[in-house]
Amino acid sequence: MGIDPGSHKLGWGVLECVGSRLTHIASGTLKAPAGPLAERLLHLHRELAGHLTTYRPQVAAVETMYHAKNTQSVFVLAQARGAALLALAQAGLAVNEYSPSQIKQAATGRGNSDKEQVRAMVERLLQLNIRPLGQDQSDALACALCHAQHAPAARRLAAL
Amino acid sequence: MGIDPGSHKLGWGVLECVGSRLTHIASGTLKAPAGPLAERLLHLHRELAGHLTTYRPQVAAVETMYHAKNTQSVFVLAQARGAALLALAQAGLAVNEYSPSQIKQAATGRGNSDKEQVRAMVERLLQLNIRPLGQDQSDALACALCHAQHAPAARRLAAL
Repeated sequence: MGIDPGSHKLGWGVLECVGSRLTHIASGTLKAPAGPLAERLLHLHRELAGHLTTYRPQVAAVETMYHAKNTQSVFVLAQARGAALLALAQAGLAVNEYSPSQIKQAATGRGNSDKEQVRAMVERLLQLNIRPLGQDQSDALACALCHAQHAPAARRLAAL
Repeated sequence: MGIDPGSHKLGWGVLECVGSRLTHIASGTLKAPAGPLAERLLHLHRELAGHLTTYRPQVAAVETMYHAKNTQSVFVLAQARGAALLALAQAGLAVNEYSPSQIKQAATGRGNSDKEQVRAMVERLLQLNIRPLGQDQSDALACALCHAQHAPAARRLAAL
């Protein structure tokens, strides 16, 4: 499962990976209702925990935090990310983190692609007919793709 | 219950408030074990949820985020704060937020006191004999004190 946490929305996507074959299982965007932050975190956590129970992924991938500007929305994003990481850990998943450029590289072959290029390649690589993907949904699937590409090499390294 | 979330430690403190009389019920500091962030959040959330079950506070107070520097430790702090807010919301508590200067003002009468002055006044106001308080524990109790001072005025305003 790939996760793209945002300050008001959270993208998620589940891929099945058999050998080098990737299949899209499910994906979507969670939107927190307006209201106090604690209530919004409660909503995001509950929804994400529900998807974890439904799809039972074996491993998780989340984008690292990288924002250069220290605004209130970054604080909110980080707190939402904390609630998401918690849900993953509660489901017993190892959490792998990838930088934005690693994720773009995995989806498009270039670390500086724009979001639209990432979305187009995610749709193409996963042969999706649920277009158009939401931006957060697409980023979450790109993050899962990134892990699918990195994991075999990491396993080989670990076995050395 | 007052909460002082930090990137590696989380202070908590429970006060009983009857009229203007405040009594210290329990307080402490949660330390996350070394390891991946998701595991640390899992630990903090589980411990805090345990204290919430034990002491059943009626309302929560947490310091606002204010850090000026945008470092990795602020991101970690924010994610820990998210896990703590989640535990409070899951326990059904309303979460009140106070700025550092409001909290210092409540404890010492001055919004620019240093942490040592806050600690000394918290110990004195609550007639604590468990000195010395940990820094995070003291900040959490000061946050609870701050809510105890603000809540009656807020209730009167709400009733107007």
